[in-house]
Amino acid sequence: MLRAPGNRRETCARTSLLLMAPASLEPPLRAFSMLRRVTGEALGTAMLLVVVIGSGIMGERLAGGNVAIALLGNTLATGAGLVVLITIFGPLSGAHFNPGVTLVFALRREITWPMAGIYIAAQVIGGVLGVWMAHAMFAEPILQVSTKLRDGPAQAFAEFVATFGLIAAILGSIRFKPDATPMIVGLYITAAYWFTASTSFANPAVTIARSLSNTFAGIAPGSMPMFIVAQLVGAVTASILFQWLLKEQQAA
Amino acid sequence: MLRAPGNRRETCARTSLLLMAPASLEPPLRAFSMLRRVTGEALGTAMLLVVVIGSGIMGERLAGGNVAIALLGNTLATGAGLVVLITIFGPLSGAHFNPGVTLVFALRREITWPMAGIYIAAQVIGGVLGVWMAHAMFAEPILQVSTKLRDGPAQAFAEFVATFGLIAAILGSIRFKPDATPMIVGLYITAAYWFTASTSFANPAVTIARSLSNTFAGIAPGSMPMFIVAQLVGAVTASILFQWLLKEQQAA
Amino acid sequence: MLRAPGNRRETCARTSLLLMAPASLEPPLRAFSMLRRVTGEALGTAMLLVVVIGSGIMGERLAGGNVAIALLGNTLATGAGLVVLITIFGPLSGAHFNPGVTLVFALRREITWPMAGIYIAAQVIGGVLGVWMAHAMFAEPILQVSTKLRDGPAQAFAEFVATFGLIAAILGSIRFKPDATPMIVGLYITAAYWFTASTSFANPAVTIARSLSNTFAGIAPGSMPMFIVAQLVGAVTASILFQWLLKEQQAA
Amino acid sequence: MLRAPGNRRETCARTSLLLMAPASLEPPLRAFSMLRRVTGEALGTAMLLVVVIGSGIMGERLAGGNVAIALLGNTLATGAGLVVLITIFGPLSGAHFNPGVTLVFALRREITWPMAGIYIAAQVIGGVLGVWMAHAMFAEPILQVSTKLRDGPAQAFAEFVATFGLIAAILGSIRFKPDATPMIVGLYITAAYWFTASTSFANPAVTIARSLSNTFAGIAPGSMPMFIVAQLVGAVTASILFQWLLKEQQAA
Repeated sequence: MLRAPGNRRETCARTSLLLMAPASLEPPLRAFSMLRRVTGEALGTAMLLVVVIGSGIMGERLAGGNVAIALLGNTLATGAGLVVLITIFGPLSGAHFNPGVTLVFALRREITWPMAGIYIAAQVIGGVLGVWMAHAMFAEPILQVSTKLRDGPAQAFAEFVATFGLIAAILGSIRFKPDATPMIVGLYITAAYWFTASTSFANPAVTIARSLSNTFAGIAPGSMPMFIVAQLVGAVTASILFQWLLKEQQAA
Repeated sequence: MLRAPGNRRETCARTSLLLMAPASLEPPLRAFSMLRRVTGEALGTAMLLVVVIGSGIMGERLAGGNVAIALLGNTLATGAGLVVLITIFGPLSGAHFNPGVTLVFALRREITWPMAGIYIAAQVIGGVLGVWMAHAMFAEPILQVSTKLRDGPAQAFAEFVATFGLIAAILGSIRFKPDATPMIVGLYITAAYWFTASTSFANPAVTIARSLSNTFAGIAPGSMPMFIVAQLVGAVTASILFQWLLKEQQAA
Repeated sequence: MLRAPGNRRETCARTSLLLMAPASLEPPLRAFSMLRRVTGEALGTAMLLVVVIGSGIMGERLAGGNVAIALLGNTLATGAGLVVLITIFGPLSGAHFNPGVTLVFALRREITWPMAGIYIAAQVIGGVLGVWMAHAMFAEPILQVSTKLRDGPAQAFAEFVATFGLIAAILGSIRFKPDATPMIVGLYITAAYWFTASTSFANPAVTIARSLSNTFAGIAPGSMPMFIVAQLVGAVTASILFQWLLKEQQAA
Repeated sequence: MLRAPGNRRETCARTSLLLMAPASLEPPLRAFSMLRRVTGEALGTAMLLVVVIGSGIMGERLAGGNVAIALLGNTLATGAGLVVLITIFGPLSGAHFNPGVTLVFALRREITWPMAGIYIAAQVIGGVLGVWMAHAMFAEPILQVSTKLRDGPAQAFAEFVATFGLIAAILGSIRFKPDATPMIVGLYITAAYWFTASTSFANPAVTIARSLSNTFAGIAPGSMPMFIVAQLVGAVTASILFQWLLKEQQAA
């Protein structure tokens, strides 16, 4: 029996989806066990912090005091590393690596609240382990606390903008070009390291982890709460605005 | 009943188009309300100026007086930021962000003249707001006027070349590889920041907005008119030339 | 009547090809008039030289004497510019921009010898015009002759390697991933500016044009012949080797 | 006769695969003779070392003593070069260029042990020839031995992390987005040059070859054994972990 045109179209679309293997930040299509997903989320966040902290130390050590050159190395590494990590962990865990992102997906009901809690715990634990691995690689003391103050309303506004933009980039790219999400997020952070006054932490787990490193990319624990509040407000604001902005008109 | 081969092919093509979600600079395929499109155009241009001005300030502050290093940071951020912004706003508003681009699409009858007027107003307003947001992030006075003179025929010719090349990149990529338009525009501006003597403004709305920032990326208001004229002449010249150049031969 | 499976597959493939619009360096699929193709080749080569010479001048002027920083700007601009130019001119003229590339395609019988001669003339004329446009933008004297000597067997070997690698990149990518050719060529030149001792001219038309600029990217006319011979030998060597290397086994 | 839906889907998928020409690191789909595959592996590794050593020399010569600037040039060239080399040699030989990668594929039974041995020999020989070619281009003495000590547990841990991450990037991207493997590997090494304390050799053949160059990218022969052991342990660890991590649940 011949199938209806609708079915045929669907077959084609499904095949293409499998081939393209979209490494989106949304919950994955394929069914991985919860243990694997949480492990992926923790391992991915750990590797992200290895990249952020490690390249910050390397940049500072080699740049001869020119902070812009150190930041260039730090930026290249973080942007490139994010593309890799989101590509390989996206279809497994969703590759949030960021409690702000997990919060947005929970608000959109694309992840349950209990699972969101587990994800956030995995991100924080993974992030801290990543910082310690970076310290070990560079023969730094493992346990450190940052003394780098990052205070004031301008810094808070910068973190609001940074996280607003990150969520905008994620929601827009998942909607219009999901296959490109890893690249888009990597490029966004590449830009945001330079265009925000705070070098774009934009991630509460990363903020907590970075407070445990007294190196280039560190942040004093006292500056943390303001950063995290600004990040969450930015994330929720972007989520609400884009919920409205990306709604199509009804067909007449 | 069996459909004709032509229909079948069309079905496949249409499915793929939906999956690929081309983030072109042309008017979008999907129907978003006019309010959403104009909001997208204003928000996108605002974010573009946040990137351009913010990364310019960051570069200048960190580079220790080496202008090339400051420009490297400014370039990386702007190129990467453009790819992100065109990807996420392209299917919504077309992601012109540029009165020169809107003018070209109006001449090609791909946007109506009244809509073009509204777009241009949104771009200018968004651009100015973006400059002010960047100032706020970096704890700069919000209201500034640039004192950086950019005069003379060489600078005008540079802006002509910069905008000619931008329109060439847009029309060529929309024609031959629409899915890659965001990347192509980002790469073009990355190159043009370095190969033009004016660091490639190539955009009247950006020019107006940058006159309100007395920082790295500023331009004195008195230098503005010549820049804008050169940009529009470059845009129209490229539009006419590529209208002819990209016309295929009739099949015999 | 139902078509055979073979036909059906072909339909699907052809549709995809049209959608993907491969911007290959091979002769284009679509029929553009010879005048348009030659104009495209000249205009593209002109724009390439605008990028190479312009970003060289910009880099040198801003880098405060640090040649590596000047070369970073020059590299970013050239790599990014090449991706743009090959994407937008590839389906029109093939985007050779390089007599060495045209020679290889003529040897492979993918372009006729008379057409190859016209292409090479267009490349040289376009290249020279591009150099002059770059000078005009930077308020340099239009007519210059380089005094930068680039001599000796090491430099010749570097040009051999540079052009060998370029042809390898082109033939390999056209064969296995034609849609990515613009990106592959841009990335190759990005690398080759740094890994070859000669900063990878790899192009006789570019070599001739660069002899007319006494700036960062110039080359003394007396050093030209050795460069061009080394480039052509490298191109032909790669062509022969990859002709053999990429030949598949017969199915048993 | 009408075919079953399953067949139809398969036809579509196979067509797309051919069009996409995935340049994966896995054994190639197309049948090239063993001589061609081994030649490709040796030539590709040689070109990789030309890039690594050549851009290291160039960076050191031009950077005026600022090691971070030298490393930026070295990084750009290596990352870009890897994307090119894996794209053009991937479908031919698999583009391992790395005994650690070949070992992992042998453990996964995707290459036979005798073939793995031949591949590793080709990689080492190709790598050494590449170093000598780089020396010739830069008019350096061809035969050198590095005196740059890279010792201690932190360096060993860095090489463990670097190679663990490389194998993770390869296995994850082959699994979820094979078409992007060349880009993912290039981006990974771009990041790893900065985030690992050892600038990420992550490759025993490259380590051996680099011991024969007393330039920027060299390593003293005495430091080699520890590097190679750490690399192989990192590779095998990643292989085991991702074997488990990427296993999907059984459908109920």
